[in-house]
Amino acid sequence: MRRFFVDIGNLDQEIITLPVDESKHAAKVLRMRIGHQMELVNGKGVVFTGEITDDQPKAVEVRKVNLIEEKPDKHHIHIAIAPTKNNDRLEWFLEKATELGIHEITPILCSNSERKKIKPERLQKILVSAMKQSKRLFLPKLNQLTSIDDFLDKHPIGLIAHCYEEEDKNTSIQLELQKNANRWQSKNTPILIGPEGDFSLNEVKKALENGYQAVTLGKTRLRTETAGVYACMNVKLYFEEFFKAKH
Amino acid sequence: MRRFFVDIGNLDQEIITLPVDESKHAAKVLRMRIGHQMELVNGKGVVFTGEITDDQPKAVEVRKVNLIEEKPDKHHIHIAIAPTKNNDRLEWFLEKATELGIHEITPILCSNSERKKIKPERLQKILVSAMKQSKRLFLPKLNQLTSIDDFLDKHPIGLIAHCYEEEDKNTSIQLELQKNANRWQSKNTPILIGPEGDFSLNEVKKALENGYQAVTLGKTRLRTETAGVYACMNVKLYFEEFFKAKH
Repeated sequence: MRRFFVDIGNLDQEIITLPVDESKHAAKVLRMRIGHQMELVNGKGVVFTGEITDDQPKAVEVRKVNLIEEKPDKHHIHIAIAPTKNNDRLEWFLEKATELGIHEITPILCSNSERKKIKPERLQKILVSAMKQSKRLFLPKLNQLTSIDDFLDKHPIGLIAHCYEEEDKNTSIQLELQKNANRWQSKNTPILIGPEGDFSLNEVKKALENGYQAVTLGKTRLRTETAGVYACMNVKLYFEEFFKAKH
Repeated sequence: MRRFFVDIGNLDQEIITLPVDESKHAAKVLRMRIGHQMELVNGKGVVFTGEITDDQPKAVEVRKVNLIEEKPDKHHIHIAIAPTKNNDRLEWFLEKATELGIHEITPILCSNSERKKIKPERLQKILVSAMKQSKRLFLPKLNQLTSIDDFLDKHPIGLIAHCYEEEDKNTSIQLELQKNANRWQSKNTPILIGPEGDFSLNEVKKALENGYQAVTLGKTRLRTETAGVYACMNVKLYFEEFFKAKH
């Protein structure tokens, strides 16, 4: 069934009116009419299944048939990533990370960042579209572009995937998950992914002094957006398979 | 150091002449001159480090300074994937899978395939570029577009990631790797990823009758190219971390 996004915190109502853009999409593009069924999602775990009772193209009205609520995941995947020079690569990361179950994304500004501005509205649309397409019910939270210094002040622990060869890097996301699975459940353990030119040595130093753990992402050199997706998958895989198997 | 691709099986020579396109790139775009150093790779595990002895823009000549040979991986990742309707998505898959260590790719033609043609030369360029960028020394093998029937005849066992809900699907790539790690090392165990409209029921039936195992890729619904990248990451992660830890 077709899925539409409504930015309404509480979907526990009998009748819901779609916002203008989704109304147009339903009534004009897809030619949906009175009596047709659709699903509404709010990105907060609820699916409202309903039947169209009014099909005017600016305010499609839907009456509830069924409501399902899903519990949020018990773990929290937060990736703080430097926007890539090529904007498509950042957008691709957002789409893939949403499909793979990310919960929170913070774009970070580093001293080697080649892109210093992002378009939050456009990025938000990509998240909504990937959420609908992948049948997830929770919309990832997109934070504002934040300097790495401010980010480290706000998030004192986490993992950092830098590319310098260091002795402290012979651990991986999987090993850290095995050691500290509870930290990923109860608290926010962000994974930092640097820009194309990597983090500066000072940035790495500050993170490690703060209490971050450096991790390796494997043998080959990954692009920024690939590293972000790979990090996300590592956590997904852990909580969908290994963690379950253990408990 | 800058890396260039030469399609030469044996790099054990004193002097190598770059092909025209790589020569132009070195001499014209990057303005490299006599005495500058570069690395040549052939996609077969060898890095030839050399010094330019002739910088004419159509035939840059390089003299050997050093030669390093890397052994191939002991495992083999082969993904057979239906080309996506949007060609960019297939190209993204190829780039990411190369970064993540894929060894062999077969584009497959299914009954629900929306794209029935590919451009092998363009795809080959993407593989070469991703190999250079990610510092891998082995170029993945790109096979010809093959019908799924022919593919199944040629590869009697493997994994298939279809989206039908079936009882036989409560296993995953990780579980299959754990059960049959030796099969992934000695033999070719392809993972089949279907088109946007999924495999047809007949295709799934034929694969299962052939000896394929159906696998799930997790809770959320993944796009074709995300499924391909996720499958590739599963195998990479297994052989880089878990398999090592066990042996």
